[in-house]
Amino acid sequence: MRSLGTAHYRAAVIITDRRAWLNQLVMIRGTSLSVSWKRMLVATVTATAVTLAQVYFEVFDTNLTPLPFTLIGLALSIFLGFRNTTSYDRFWEGRKLWGRMVNVSRSFTRQLLTLIGPQAQTSTRAPAPEEVAELARVRRELVYGQIAYVHAFRQHLRGQHDPDEYLNLLPDALAGTLEAELNRPLAISQWLGDRLRALYDRGWVHPLHLSVLEGSLTEITAVQGACERIKSTPIPYSYTVLMHRIVAVYCLGLPFGIVSTVGMLTPVVVAIVAYAFYGLDAVGTEIEDPFGTDPNDLPLSTLSRMIEINLRQRLGEGELPPVLEPVDGILQ
Amino acid sequence: MRSLGTAHYRAAVIITDRRAWLNQLVMIRGTSLSVSWKRMLVATVTATAVTLAQVYFEVFDTNLTPLPFTLIGLALSIFLGFRNTTSYDRFWEGRKLWGRMVNVSRSFTRQLLTLIGPQAQTSTRAPAPEEVAELARVRRELVYGQIAYVHAFRQHLRGQHDPDEYLNLLPDALAGTLEAELNRPLAISQWLGDRLRALYDRGWVHPLHLSVLEGSLTEITAVQGACERIKSTPIPYSYTVLMHRIVAVYCLGLPFGIVSTVGMLTPVVVAIVAYAFYGLDAVGTEIEDPFGTDPNDLPLSTLSRMIEINLRQRLGEGELPPVLEPVDGILQ
Amino acid sequence: MRSLGTAHYRAAVIITDRRAWLNQLVMIRGTSLSVSWKRMLVATVTATAVTLAQVYFEVFDTNLTPLPFTLIGLALSIFLGFRNTTSYDRFWEGRKLWGRMVNVSRSFTRQLLTLIGPQAQTSTRAPAPEEVAELARVRRELVYGQIAYVHAFRQHLRGQHDPDEYLNLLPDALAGTLEAELNRPLAISQWLGDRLRALYDRGWVHPLHLSVLEGSLTEITAVQGACERIKSTPIPYSYTVLMHRIVAVYCLGLPFGIVSTVGMLTPVVVAIVAYAFYGLDAVGTEIEDPFGTDPNDLPLSTLSRMIEINLRQRLGEGELPPVLEPVDGILQ
Amino acid sequence: MRSLGTAHYRAAVIITDRRAWLNQLVMIRGTSLSVSWKRMLVATVTATAVTLAQVYFEVFDTNLTPLPFTLIGLALSIFLGFRNTTSYDRFWEGRKLWGRMVNVSRSFTRQLLTLIGPQAQTSTRAPAPEEVAELARVRRELVYGQIAYVHAFRQHLRGQHDPDEYLNLLPDALAGTLEAELNRPLAISQWLGDRLRALYDRGWVHPLHLSVLEGSLTEITAVQGACERIKSTPIPYSYTVLMHRIVAVYCLGLPFGIVSTVGMLTPVVVAIVAYAFYGLDAVGTEIEDPFGTDPNDLPLSTLSRMIEINLRQRLGEGELPPVLEPVDGILQ
Amino acid sequence: MRSLGTAHYRAAVIITDRRAWLNQLVMIRGTSLSVSWKRMLVATVTATAVTLAQVYFEVFDTNLTPLPFTLIGLALSIFLGFRNTTSYDRFWEGRKLWGRMVNVSRSFTRQLLTLIGPQAQTSTRAPAPEEVAELARVRRELVYGQIAYVHAFRQHLRGQHDPDEYLNLLPDALAGTLEAELNRPLAISQWLGDRLRALYDRGWVHPLHLSVLEGSLTEITAVQGACERIKSTPIPYSYTVLMHRIVAVYCLGLPFGIVSTVGMLTPVVVAIVAYAFYGLDAVGTEIEDPFGTDPNDLPLSTLSRMIEINLRQRLGEGELPPVLEPVDGILQ
Repeated sequence: MRSLGTAHYRAAVIITDRRAWLNQLVMIRGTSLSVSWKRMLVATVTATAVTLAQVYFEVFDTNLTPLPFTLIGLALSIFLGFRNTTSYDRFWEGRKLWGRMVNVSRSFTRQLLTLIGPQAQTSTRAPAPEEVAELARVRRELVYGQIAYVHAFRQHLRGQHDPDEYLNLLPDALAGTLEAELNRPLAISQWLGDRLRALYDRGWVHPLHLSVLEGSLTEITAVQGACERIKSTPIPYSYTVLMHRIVAVYCLGLPFGIVSTVGMLTPVVVAIVAYAFYGLDAVGTEIEDPFGTDPNDLPLSTLSRMIEINLRQRLGEGELPPVLEPVDGILQ
Repeated sequence: MRSLGTAHYRAAVIITDRRAWLNQLVMIRGTSLSVSWKRMLVATVTATAVTLAQVYFEVFDTNLTPLPFTLIGLALSIFLGFRNTTSYDRFWEGRKLWGRMVNVSRSFTRQLLTLIGPQAQTSTRAPAPEEVAELARVRRELVYGQIAYVHAFRQHLRGQHDPDEYLNLLPDALAGTLEAELNRPLAISQWLGDRLRALYDRGWVHPLHLSVLEGSLTEITAVQGACERIKSTPIPYSYTVLMHRIVAVYCLGLPFGIVSTVGMLTPVVVAIVAYAFYGLDAVGTEIEDPFGTDPNDLPLSTLSRMIEINLRQRLGEGELPPVLEPVDGILQ
Repeated sequence: MRSLGTAHYRAAVIITDRRAWLNQLVMIRGTSLSVSWKRMLVATVTATAVTLAQVYFEVFDTNLTPLPFTLIGLALSIFLGFRNTTSYDRFWEGRKLWGRMVNVSRSFTRQLLTLIGPQAQTSTRAPAPEEVAELARVRRELVYGQIAYVHAFRQHLRGQHDPDEYLNLLPDALAGTLEAELNRPLAISQWLGDRLRALYDRGWVHPLHLSVLEGSLTEITAVQGACERIKSTPIPYSYTVLMHRIVAVYCLGLPFGIVSTVGMLTPVVVAIVAYAFYGLDAVGTEIEDPFGTDPNDLPLSTLSRMIEINLRQRLGEGELPPVLEPVDGILQ
Repeated sequence: MRSLGTAHYRAAVIITDRRAWLNQLVMIRGTSLSVSWKRMLVATVTATAVTLAQVYFEVFDTNLTPLPFTLIGLALSIFLGFRNTTSYDRFWEGRKLWGRMVNVSRSFTRQLLTLIGPQAQTSTRAPAPEEVAELARVRRELVYGQIAYVHAFRQHLRGQHDPDEYLNLLPDALAGTLEAELNRPLAISQWLGDRLRALYDRGWVHPLHLSVLEGSLTEITAVQGACERIKSTPIPYSYTVLMHRIVAVYCLGLPFGIVSTVGMLTPVVVAIVAYAFYGLDAVGTEIEDPFGTDPNDLPLSTLSRMIEINLRQRLGEGELPPVLEPVDGILQ
Repeated sequence: MRSLGTAHYRAAVIITDRRAWLNQLVMIRGTSLSVSWKRMLVATVTATAVTLAQVYFEVFDTNLTPLPFTLIGLALSIFLGFRNTTSYDRFWEGRKLWGRMVNVSRSFTRQLLTLIGPQAQTSTRAPAPEEVAELARVRRELVYGQIAYVHAFRQHLRGQHDPDEYLNLLPDALAGTLEAELNRPLAISQWLGDRLRALYDRGWVHPLHLSVLEGSLTEITAVQGACERIKSTPIPYSYTVLMHRIVAVYCLGLPFGIVSTVGMLTPVVVAIVAYAFYGLDAVGTEIEDPFGTDPNDLPLSTLSRMIEINLRQRLGEGELPPVLEPVDGILQ
C-alpha cells in the first residue's frame, strides 16, 4: 500500500488516490479516452449503421459469423500484448535511467566533497585558510556544474532550449562556448572532466580518486546515451503499422460478424471492444517515448528540481528552490 | 520445499504452513477478499437482479450471448496478465533492493573493520594502546552510523518520522542538524563519507581503500535511489484506469450475457468470476508499492532489525536487540 | 543434446536418460503425482458422484454448461502461467547464485594463491625457507576457511546444524566462538577479512590486492544475502491463496459443467484436467524454495563437495573426498 | 509523446509522424506487405478456388469444421509470440549495444583528453610548449583512431569493405597492415592498446589510469563481440522451419475449414488472417538481424556519423561532417 | 536482413538461405521431424484406427466432444510456452557465455601484450635485446595458454577428451600434470595466475595491472562456471515429465474427441497437431543443452577455432589454422 508523507518523491505525473476506485470509472483527463475517442466514434458509428441496415433491411445474409474474429484475435492478442509490454518497458527503463541519474548525481557530489582537496599524506596536515576557501569554491563550482548538467540534459532530451535555467551556474568561459555545441550536456560533462584533470595536476586529487571520479562521469555518460537511445529509436515501424491495420480491420469489421448474433446491442459491444483495443494502443503510444510532456510521461522537471535541492543541501545551502507541485494533478 | 530453523530470515509477512492447503481455502485475513469483497458484492447483487428479472419476467430478449465477453476477454487477459507481472516485478525488485541493502551493510561493516586503521606499511607495526582504543571507537561510530542509516532510510521510505529510533546511534553534532534535512538518510551517508575523508587525511585509510569504501557508499546511494524510484513511480495511471473500467464493464455486464445460458446459477458464476478478477486486481494493488505496511508488503522493520543484529554481532557486542516476531502471523 | 562424461557436474537431482520418453509416462517418484494425488482423488471422486447422479437420476437440470469454465479459465491461465514462471525463476536464480558461489570460490582461491606473499618489489627476491613454509600454511588456512564457509552456508540455508562437517577446517579460536553466532557463515567471512587485514599489516598483501580480495568477499556476501532473500521471501501469500481457491473451484465444479456434454467420461476428463492443474501447482510449490531437500531441489551437498574438491586440488592435495553419487537417482 | 528538435538523434530508420494514424493504414513501403504479399496471394488464390468449388459444385462434404484451426492455433500463438519477442529482443539488444558504443566512444574520448599527459605530480608543473603541441597531437591521433574504429566496425558488421572511409584517420604504418587483417576493428583496438602502452612507458599515463583506459578498450571489445554474436547466431533453424510449416499449413488449410461457415467471404477472411500471420513472420525476419540495411534495420551509418561529430567537437574542431539526413524517409 | 561477407562469424550450425521459404517446407535434416517422427506416427496410427472403428462400426457413442481438449489446451499452452522460452533462454545464455569467452580472450590477450613488460617508470627506458626477446617469449607462452584453455574448456564442456589438441601449446611441466586433474581448464587458468604472479615478483607487472589481469581470469572463471551450470542443471524433471504426459494424453486422446466432428479427416488433423506439439517439444529438448553436438547446438569448435585465429593474429603470426567450414551445411 502506498503510504503518505514523501509526496516530494512521487514522480508519477498524475497524483490521485489510488483507492478512489469509483472516480476512476468516470474521469477522462489523462486517460486514454482523450486520445482514442475519435477512432472509437468511427467504429461505433459504423456498427450502428450496420446494425440498422441488418435489423431493418436484412442487407447481409446470415453466413456472417464471429469465427473470423476469433482467428484474428490470436494475432491481435500477440500484437497488443507485445505492444503493451514493450511500451511499458521503455517507460520503466526511462524511469530507471533517471533514477540512476539521481543516484550518480548524489554520489558524484559526495565524491566531489570528500575526494577533492590537498592530499594530507603528501603535504602538511593543516591547510592554509585561503586554501580552505579555495577548496570550498572549487567544490561548489563542480557541484553547480553537475546541477547545470542535469538541467541541460533534460532540455536536450525534451528538445527544449532555455539555457537561462542553468547558464548562471557555469563559469563564463564555458557558458560562452556552449551555444555552439550540438550536444550541450556532453560539453558540460567534458568540462567537468577537464576541471578534475586540472585539480589532479594541482595535486588536489589522488591518481586513484581521479579514476573514481572519472567512473562517475562514465556513468553519467552512460545514462545520457541510454536516454538518447530510447528517445531516438521507436518500436520498429513495421510493427506499429501492422498492429494499427489489424486493430482497424478488427474493429470496423466486427459489426458484420456479430450483428446476427448480438442484434441491436451490436453498437454497444463494438464500442466497448473498440474502447479496450484503441485504449490499449493509445496508452502504449503515450508512454512509448517517456521523456515527452504528456500527462503520463515522466516528470523530468520534478526530478531535476529534486536533484538540484539534494545537491544544494549537500553544499550546506539554506535557500533552496521549492519542490515542484503538481498542476491540475499532473507533475511536469 | 521450505525447511525450518531459519525463521528469523523469513521476510514474507504472513507466516503459515505452505502445505496447509485446506486452510487456505477458507481464511480471509491477509487475502484479497478483505479488499475486494465490496466490488464482488455489487457484481453479485447485480447478477441476482438480472437473473430474477430474466427467469421470472423474461425482461431481456434472447439475443444476448456470451460472445462479447469472449472478445473482451482477450483485452482483459492482456491487462490482468500485465498488471500481475508488473506488480510482482515491483514487489520483487523492492525485495532485491533490500537484499542488496543487507549485503552492502554487511560488506561495508567488514570493510570498516578491516580496511581502517593505522597503515602498517607506512608506520610502526605496534600501534600504541590508546590508538587501539581510538580505532575501536572510530569503527563502532561508523558501524553505528550505518545502522542509523538503515533505520532512517526505512522511515523515509514508509513516510514515517520517529528519529528517536536512531538518533542515539549518531554523534550529537550530526543528530542536531538532521531534523532540518529533507532527505535524512542521504545526509547520514554524506556524513559517513565526510568521516572517511577525515580518517584518510589522518592516514588511517589507504587512498585505494578509500575508493573501496566510497564504492560501498555509492552502492548504498544506488539502493536508496532505486527504492525511492519504485515508491514514487506507480504504474502509469492510464493503464490502471483502463483496466479498472474494463474489469467493471466485464463483471457488471456478464449476467446479461450468460443468464440465458446458465440460468439460475448466474449469480454463482458471476461471483466466482468477479472474485477471480477483482482478487487479481486487489493483490496487484496491494504489492504494487511493496514498502507500505499492508499484510503482504515487505517486512522492512524485520529486515532493519536483522541488519542491526548482524552488524552489532560483528562489533562483538553481546547484548543484542531481539529478532522481531510475527504479530498475528504478520511480520512488519 | 546432453553429452556424457561430465556427470560429476550434473547438478540436477534426478539422474535419468532424458530420451527415455516412454519411461517418463509411467514413473511416479520425483514427479508431481507424489504430492498432488490426494487432490486429484478428491476431484475425481466428486466427478464420479456427479456423473452417476446425473446419468442415473438426472439430478441436475440441463442448463449447466461449460461456459463458466471458459470464463474462469482466463484467470486461471494467468495465475498458473505466473506461478509457473515465478517458481522457475526462483529455482533458476538459486542455481545461478550457487553457480556464482562456485565461481567466486575458485577465483578467491586463485587470488589467495597468487596475490598473497612477501612483496617482491619491496623486499628481497629470495624469501627464506621458513617464509615459504609459512606462506603455504597461511594460504592453506585461508582456502580451508573458504571450504568451511561453503559448508556452513549450505547448512545455514537448509536450516541444518552439523558443525562437525567444517569445524576441523577452521583454527580453534574461531571454531570456539562460532557456536554463539546467529549467522555462522557471516562470522567466517568476517574472520577471512580479519586474516587478510593481518596479512596486509604484515606486508604480505599489496594495498591494491587487498581491495581485490575484499571484492571477492563482497561477492560472497552478496551471494549469501541473495540466497537468504529467496529463502525468506516466498511468493506473496495472497497470490498463493487466490490461485489455490480458483483451482479448487475449477476442478470441483468442472463435473457439473461438463457432465451433460461429456456424460460417462466426465470422471476421466476431470481426472486429467485436475492432474494437469494440480500438477502444475505442485511442481511450483516444490521448486519455489530451491534450497530444500525435495527430489527436484538443488543438490547443494553435491555442489559443496565439488567446490571442496576443486579447492583442495588447487592446493595440490592428492587425497580428495569422493564426488557425491546419486542415491536412488537423486542427488542431494 | 515524442517531442521535436533532436531529430539528429533519431535512430529509427523510418521517419514519419507517429500520429498520422490514417496514413499508416494505406502505405506499403517499409511495411511487411512488401515482403509477404506473395505468400498472401497464394493463400488468397487457394481460398478463392476452394470457395468457388464448394459454393458452385459442393465438392467437399460438410464435416469440415474450424475446430482443427482452434487446436493448431494454440501452437501457432506460442510460435508467433515467441518469434515476435525473440526478434524484437535481438533488435533491441543490437540497439543497446550500439548505444553502449556511443557511450564508450564519448567516455573513452573524455578519458583520452583528461587522463593522458605529463604527470604533474612526478614532473615539473609547467610543461614545455613543444610538449603541449605533442600532447595535442597524440590525443588527436588516438581520438581519430577511435573514430576509425567505429567506421571499420560498422563495415565489418555489415560485411562491407570501403576502407577509404577511415584509413586517412589512421597513421600510415597501421593503415598499411590493415588490409591483411581478418578482423580490422580488432586490429585497430589492439593498436590503440599498443599506443597507450607506449605512452605509459613514456610516463604520460599513470599506471592506474592505464587500467581505466584499458577498461574502456575492454568495453569496446565486449560490444564488438556481442554484435558479432547477434549477427552470427540466428534463431535456431528448427524453430524457423517448424513455424513456417505450421503457418503454411494453417493458411492454406483454412479455407477448407471455414468455407462451410463463412461461405463467399472465405477469401476475404483468409486474406486478412494470412496478412496478420505472414506479416508477423515477415517483420520478425526483417529485424532478426538488426545490422543489415533493410528499411527497419538500425541506422548504423547515422550513428557512426553522430559519434564522429561528437568526438570531433570534443577535439575542438569547427568543420564537422554533416548529420546524415533520411533518404525517402529512411535513415541508413 | 542478413548481409553476406562475414560468414566466418556465423555461429549457427545450419547454414542456409533464410529466404528460401519454399525449401524449408519440405526438408527434414536438422529439423524436429528427425526426432519426433516416431511419436507422430504412433498418434497418427491411433487416430486412423479410431476413425475407421467409428466410421465403419460406430464403436463410440456420440457424447465424445472436443470440449476436454479445449480445457486441457489451457494447461498445455502454459507448458509448451514455458518449455519453449526456457529452452531458448538456455540456448541463448550459452551463446552469450561463449560470446563473453570470445571477448575476454581478446581482451586478456591485449592486456598480456600491453600490460606486461619491464616497468618503464621504475627501470631504464631502453630494455636490453635479450629482455625484448624474453618478453616476446613470455607473452606468447601466456597467449598460447589462453588458446589451450579455450580448447580444454570446450572438450570439458562436451565431455570429450583429446588433449593432443592443446597440450603442445603448454609448457611441458604443466602438460605433464594435467592428465590427473578432474577439471583441466580450471588447472590451466590457475597456472596462468601462477605465471602472472611470477612475473609480478620479477617486476614485470605493475601491482595495479596484476589486478586487471586477475580481473580477466575472474571473468574466465565466471564464464566457465556458468557454462557448467547450464550443462549440469536441466529443467526440473517434474516439469518435463508432467509436460510429456499431458502432450501424450492430448495427442492420443484427440481422435476420440474430434472423430464425430471431423470424420474421415481425423488422422490428418491429429497428424498436424501432433507434429506441432511433438515438434515444439523436440526442438526444446535439442537446444536445452546447447553445448552438445546436435545439428542445432552451438558450434563450439568453430568458435574455439576463431578465438585461436584472432589470438594468433594478435601475436603477429602469419600461418594461421583455417576457419572451420560447415560440413553438410552444419557447423560443429
